[in-house]
Amino acid sequence: MFAPLQNDTFLRACLHQATDHTPVWLMRQAGRYLPEYRATRAQAGSFMGLATNTDYATEVTLQPLERFPLDAAILFSDILTVPDAMGLGLSFALGEGPRFATPVRDEAAVARLQVPDMNKLRYVFDAVTSIRKALNGRVPLIGFSGSPWTLACYMVEGAGSDDYRLVKTMLYQRPDLLHKMLAINADSVATYLNAQIEAGAQAVMIFDSWGGVLADAAFHEFSLAYTKRVLAQLKREHEGVVIPRVVFTKGGGLWLDAMGQLDCDVLGLDWTVNLAQARARVGEPATSGAKAKALQGNLDPNVLFASPAQIEAEVVKTLNSFGQPHGDKTQPGATHIFNLGHGISQHTAPESVEALVAAVHSHSRKMRHAQP
Amino acid sequence: MFAPLQNDTFLRACLHQATDHTPVWLMRQAGRYLPEYRATRAQAGSFMGLATNTDYATEVTLQPLERFPLDAAILFSDILTVPDAMGLGLSFALGEGPRFATPVRDEAAVARLQVPDMNKLRYVFDAVTSIRKALNGRVPLIGFSGSPWTLACYMVEGAGSDDYRLVKTMLYQRPDLLHKMLAINADSVATYLNAQIEAGAQAVMIFDSWGGVLADAAFHEFSLAYTKRVLAQLKREHEGVVIPRVVFTKGGGLWLDAMGQLDCDVLGLDWTVNLAQARARVGEPATSGAKAKALQGNLDPNVLFASPAQIEAEVVKTLNSFGQPHGDKTQPGATHIFNLGHGISQHTAPESVEALVAAVHSHSRKMRHAQP
Repeated sequence: MFAPLQNDTFLRACLHQATDHTPVWLMRQAGRYLPEYRATRAQAGSFMGLATNTDYATEVTLQPLERFPLDAAILFSDILTVPDAMGLGLSFALGEGPRFATPVRDEAAVARLQVPDMNKLRYVFDAVTSIRKALNGRVPLIGFSGSPWTLACYMVEGAGSDDYRLVKTMLYQRPDLLHKMLAINADSVATYLNAQIEAGAQAVMIFDSWGGVLADAAFHEFSLAYTKRVLAQLKREHEGVVIPRVVFTKGGGLWLDAMGQLDCDVLGLDWTVNLAQARARVGEPATSGAKAKALQGNLDPNVLFASPAQIEAEVVKTLNSFGQPHGDKTQPGATHIFNLGHGISQHTAPESVEALVAAVHSHSRKMRHAQP
Repeated sequence: MFAPLQNDTFLRACLHQATDHTPVWLMRQAGRYLPEYRATRAQAGSFMGLATNTDYATEVTLQPLERFPLDAAILFSDILTVPDAMGLGLSFALGEGPRFATPVRDEAAVARLQVPDMNKLRYVFDAVTSIRKALNGRVPLIGFSGSPWTLACYMVEGAGSDDYRLVKTMLYQRPDLLHKMLAINADSVATYLNAQIEAGAQAVMIFDSWGGVLADAAFHEFSLAYTKRVLAQLKREHEGVVIPRVVFTKGGGLWLDAMGQLDCDVLGLDWTVNLAQARARVGEPATSGAKAKALQGNLDPNVLFASPAQIEAEVVKTLNSFGQPHGDKTQPGATHIFNLGHGISQHTAPESVEALVAAVHSHSRKMRHAQP
């Protein structure tokens, strides 16, 4: 059904296999920093108009690949499509973040929640198949979802928040309600990601964007436990091919050891994490065995406001901080997937991304040649 | 000049000495959640009107002590008084955060910066002396300042920020300018805190509220290095009495080992940190010697939106997570100062604070009696 994959660098790195260069892609690489994205979005009229239209979603997903030799594509969509399909009424006011018309704040609202009919998310699966065809085997396609906890944050708050007061009030006052919501979210996310895999996603990523706002004990109980519940239900393979899983908890560096135990292949890291230390703790198959994680990250997106030479220098620091890449092609090794530590800023100049991608490819090739 | 101290629990805990209960105070304990604070603020007309008037500042500092048996008072002021004295024009619009009329964004603006004339901060030192007198020895008075990096964030951004784009652009593009600003900030903060000590502050705290937004390497270079520069200039004693120093980096849990090397007595921790692990790493004089830190924190302020019984349960969990208190009165031991992991929310019910303080005192006394 789909053309054979020409650049498998990203998928190999996910699975601890040696590559000729460090693969690179950027969170939110299809986005507002690109003038061609802004033009398509203007045509679509709204963010959801863009995300729900297969042709537009395909077009904007491929836009960054036309400009930069990125090693993966990521589905153009939003982390909040699942609660929207639950009937919460997602919208994006211009210049603001997402907003739900019907937030979930009491027992009655939680009682009404259920795993949504996946037909309501058909537009996402259609987009996955359409993008996969349009990619024509150039690079693999990553599907994604918000984590159960991150979805719950928006579902309760109704929008972004500074202090997560409403969802944390529920957490401390009515943990039973929150657990019920999180279980439904987890089962919904698993069903949703499996359908993306069926539709053509070659890897899946769970964005726990707000895991880092939780207290230590609460993170384990309300975020990590439900990420595990998603992972336990995910298809391991599709048509005989392994589907790597990436988990990214923004602000989750303190819980690296616990995340190292997850049944996933890759951990996303934000810029606060020291890559060398993370590699030593959870990245080495030689010491961690099958549980070892490929590491994805973790440049501060604000580096992209510096000059091309400064961007190159920071890329080199990040690559060197991870250290010598995996050399032995016969054994699993520690692997790094270059990314930002968070989504790219809308204020970024496209030329800065060009400098970043070129620096990742050229320096990571040099590092490999420098190996004994 | 001042009355002798009746409750030295906080100061003893800072210095690893045994106490009969775990001392407790709350960041922003004098604040908007108290109706009497809102009444005084309405009289004063504005936040700066409140902070710059000695009588008002004294009144609101003491308000929470009238209601709750807290073990320390903290100067009522703002972390941004120093850049205001540098001429940046601090203001607080109602319902918004702080704002500077003249942000520092280019070489010329940085060149104009200098350590401010401390006479411009006389209102702060007068408030310290006035509060100390009004306390009449009840509990010790903590003075404070923003950290050099945190001040720089506001000085460059001109206000709070979601992404710290402007200050980080300077960091990556013109690190020389930022270093220059941070050196001036550090010298200003040290002078400012020493003047608070002279005026009567019995402990000082440095709030590195935005250290946690930095990338790993950048935290060490742009935040921690300048916190060190402040500490190196601080008076160790005043009139023969040791002045404990507290350093709090919000989101700094990943850098605990580095912070454990600081020349300070106490580390503030936010709720993401596991207290037991932090104690094992940096809190034990038996293993860390003179470098060991008392630990201050770290309840999520959102716990205060739960019921009194639930608040008590969470307080008990936090105290138990730190573990058995210091028993031997002849030797320095690991010590805990109870606090929130961040400032108390304006939406908190005063009754919730009552439940918290009572639970800290009663459970921490029980823990001591349970000791062998």
